[in-house]
Amino acid sequence: MTTTVEETTPGLAAAIARFTEALGEEAVLLESARVDEFRDPFEGPEATEHQPSFVVQPGSVEEVQEVVRIARECGVQLWTSSMGRNFGYGGSAPIVGGSVVVSLRRLNRILEINEEAGYVLLEPGVTFFELYEELQRRDVALAMSVPDLGWGSVVGNALQHGFGYHEHGIHADAVCGMEVVLANGEVLRTGQGANSRSTLWQAHKRAFGPSLDSLFMQSNFGIVTKMGLWLTPRPEVIVTGSIVCEGEDDILPLIDLLRPLVRDKTVQGLPLLSATRMVDDSAEGEAADRARKLRSIMRPGRWNARVSMYGRAAVVAAQRAVIEEQVAKVPGARLELRTYAGDASVDDVHPRDRVPAGIPTMVLLDLIKEAFYGDDTGHIDFAPVIPFEGAAAARHEQMVTRVLEEFGLAGMFAWIVNPRSMVGACMVLFDKTSAEQVARAHAAVRKMCDLAAEWGWTEYRAHISLADDVAQNFDFGDHALSRTYSSIKNALDPDGILSPGSHGIWPAAT
Amino acid sequence: MTTTVEETTPGLAAAIARFTEALGEEAVLLESARVDEFRDPFEGPEATEHQPSFVVQPGSVEEVQEVVRIARECGVQLWTSSMGRNFGYGGSAPIVGGSVVVSLRRLNRILEINEEAGYVLLEPGVTFFELYEELQRRDVALAMSVPDLGWGSVVGNALQHGFGYHEHGIHADAVCGMEVVLANGEVLRTGQGANSRSTLWQAHKRAFGPSLDSLFMQSNFGIVTKMGLWLTPRPEVIVTGSIVCEGEDDILPLIDLLRPLVRDKTVQGLPLLSATRMVDDSAEGEAADRARKLRSIMRPGRWNARVSMYGRAAVVAAQRAVIEEQVAKVPGARLELRTYAGDASVDDVHPRDRVPAGIPTMVLLDLIKEAFYGDDTGHIDFAPVIPFEGAAAARHEQMVTRVLEEFGLAGMFAWIVNPRSMVGACMVLFDKTSAEQVARAHAAVRKMCDLAAEWGWTEYRAHISLADDVAQNFDFGDHALSRTYSSIKNALDPDGILSPGSHGIWPAAT
Repeated sequence: MTTTVEETTPGLAAAIARFTEALGEEAVLLESARVDEFRDPFEGPEATEHQPSFVVQPGSVEEVQEVVRIARECGVQLWTSSMGRNFGYGGSAPIVGGSVVVSLRRLNRILEINEEAGYVLLEPGVTFFELYEELQRRDVALAMSVPDLGWGSVVGNALQHGFGYHEHGIHADAVCGMEVVLANGEVLRTGQGANSRSTLWQAHKRAFGPSLDSLFMQSNFGIVTKMGLWLTPRPEVIVTGSIVCEGEDDILPLIDLLRPLVRDKTVQGLPLLSATRMVDDSAEGEAADRARKLRSIMRPGRWNARVSMYGRAAVVAAQRAVIEEQVAKVPGARLELRTYAGDASVDDVHPRDRVPAGIPTMVLLDLIKEAFYGDDTGHIDFAPVIPFEGAAAARHEQMVTRVLEEFGLAGMFAWIVNPRSMVGACMVLFDKTSAEQVARAHAAVRKMCDLAAEWGWTEYRAHISLADDVAQNFDFGDHALSRTYSSIKNALDPDGILSPGSHGIWPAAT
Repeated sequence: MTTTVEETTPGLAAAIARFTEALGEEAVLLESARVDEFRDPFEGPEATEHQPSFVVQPGSVEEVQEVVRIARECGVQLWTSSMGRNFGYGGSAPIVGGSVVVSLRRLNRILEINEEAGYVLLEPGVTFFELYEELQRRDVALAMSVPDLGWGSVVGNALQHGFGYHEHGIHADAVCGMEVVLANGEVLRTGQGANSRSTLWQAHKRAFGPSLDSLFMQSNFGIVTKMGLWLTPRPEVIVTGSIVCEGEDDILPLIDLLRPLVRDKTVQGLPLLSATRMVDDSAEGEAADRARKLRSIMRPGRWNARVSMYGRAAVVAAQRAVIEEQVAKVPGARLELRTYAGDASVDDVHPRDRVPAGIPTMVLLDLIKEAFYGDDTGHIDFAPVIPFEGAAAARHEQMVTRVLEEFGLAGMFAWIVNPRSMVGACMVLFDKTSAEQVARAHAAVRKMCDLAAEWGWTEYRAHISLADDVAQNFDFGDHALSRTYSSIKNALDPDGILSPGSHGIWPAAT
């Protein structure tokens, strides 16, 4: 591997020597076996694109600064990854093949947990599991929002506009203050943290002048090395469960029922709405069989809106009564709710309720592996933002089902319910050992993106191979947004060394 | 006036001709009497700094683009103002004297009210009064968050990180999608609006890539011509009132009581915590007498935490019971709550409850004028962000009281309670016809800023004359934030024509 790198790109050989000198041998991963973990985990056996040349793992902010300086001097391109667990979008793999992956896994400290104020200060290598365990260990009365799989980076998830389901489930909204290493090697702190005497870095979101936190999310304008995140008080009780409908057209009244409950916060956190046809009953073939198997494992009903409430027992009881009253008005809708103490431990909570209860798990992946290809199960995700309307949801599901059938594939299908929109969460599943299946899955998702684009829907996140296509949808003013991104990119990273191509943002042509 | 302008700066004469040609004579205000409205309203009779040269009032986005193009070609500097009602911070007056004020008052359309999704799309010339009246006229079941005075621009307030008191009271957080005229004359739409086929511009906050909305708040990177803003559903009931304590040290238990109620949203919106010493009882002189008069008009108690709840009657009743239970635990604290229907009209609501009920008023200003100098009452505001702690609040109040006494001035004093911080809202009051009083008030606020800076506290907004001083506090990494702002400024506005000096952001030295 090392030889190949050196032969291919002369700058890389110099960079390897410099990185090794600055960070130590242990921090520079060159052997193919070690670099493998930073490739697209589902790229398939015939992949040639998006290959990292090697990996550096800085262990401190100063080392991140050093990495950036060396990259600039050697003219090599970096690709930043926190934990790289966003497997459905490419893991740690760079857009530009040959980039050096900067893995931040060694920056894994929980720098502060402030129970009274309700925030944490984290490095990018901290996973949801690790943060949860530390909160438990110290018996901190705070609750986290966690995504479906708990192994990823808390910081990385928020930086990618990721979602969880508890209060503060829109993780990007919960960010308060960052530390960022810029392409010139300088360290920027945002918000109140830019005042070296302030104690409010994680307590107040803005300072004086424009807030820059959001500029470093889904971008390549800097490397985030610390992030503040707001957590909610540990509630007295958690009530979670589902509103289930079985009729094919029930998605319309279900969403009409849900919308006001979400909007006035009678239900809290982000509901998860599952569309569980997944596959037509008449569809034939192995993929259809596996989809039916998954459905039989999950048994969610035709439409399933997971709803949760968190808070003081008396207030939650009043909210619950409102929901019961509203659900009773919808013919065929049934409500199933379960109650837990706010400090319930993992074992007290049914596995399917752990995520809405703020407990990290890997349950979803285990179920999917069981129904599909075991450890060889791969997925690529299609995640458009769509209107919070029943007709849009039905149209979306029909399109995905049709494309899956056309390509002989199966998937999981749900929407993360935002206050005024829904974010599709469709995993297209395949056997990652089959190059043919990998190609078919990628082609299917590309087709879904194209069809969605015709309706004005675009993906909130996308696999690295689709970044430019998704970015192309933002065409207003002859692509003014893209030009604005490039202007900022050129100002903050004139050499274009940081994650070129991320989210369609490219450095200036040189 | 015209003659002076032409004599002073040759570019301005050309600009006047070009603006008049492009926008019509009515849109170019040259006479001193008409320009007066765009000066610092409280600058005093001897002011020489921060003087606008003249005013242009574009009537469309295309005219804003034209203004920017002309300014660039003529080499004149612009200063953007929405309504310019931020009187405590300088009104419409520019930092750089001689700048042309671009007043957006003629862009005053309410472009969309979406009742079901809960948002509005506004131009910058729409005031809180106008939006409220339109919602009433159409009987839209949405509730607004309004600041203390309702005459200002809804868009301008959010752009300045302004606060109201209802849900979505952190107005910058309620912004969803903008249209911005850039310094190159192009029109940018942010978020989903960058996709010309999307219907989700005001419904979903982020698109693909970094969100730029916050970049155009408290900055000079563009001219915002449209803004989406989220409103809450009109609640079934509104409960509002105060927790009042009379003991000098009661601020400590009062804030300890308030913090968990705010953090778990038992109280909603942003509480307003008033510190009503305002003046020492022993203080002598006219200012002290007036402060005591104001206190006797307002009769708020020594410490007054205004709290509100909004929602379904049964849920609010449960929240109210929690508050009653918690207040009963604090010796000496008393609770006064009043209940209104969510659709109560202005006349149904006691004047002091209108702002928390989401009804725009001018009540506060009327009370202050009555106690002070009538229509000659001027104020300059001191508004630091401080910890959400009783000790910090006490220290803050003592410092302000001491400085006011030292300078022979009086003021109004309160904090806007954020979830993890408080924002001071201190109005230093003076007779605007007295140059000596104006100078004294400015000096007093400057001293408050200096003292606050020693504690690591900085202002969330500041009078234009203080912008550079406040920006200086953000010193981390040898002022990395300031350099980053300048890099972005130079990239987006290389000629430095848009609001130079706003929030301490200056174009590159040329």
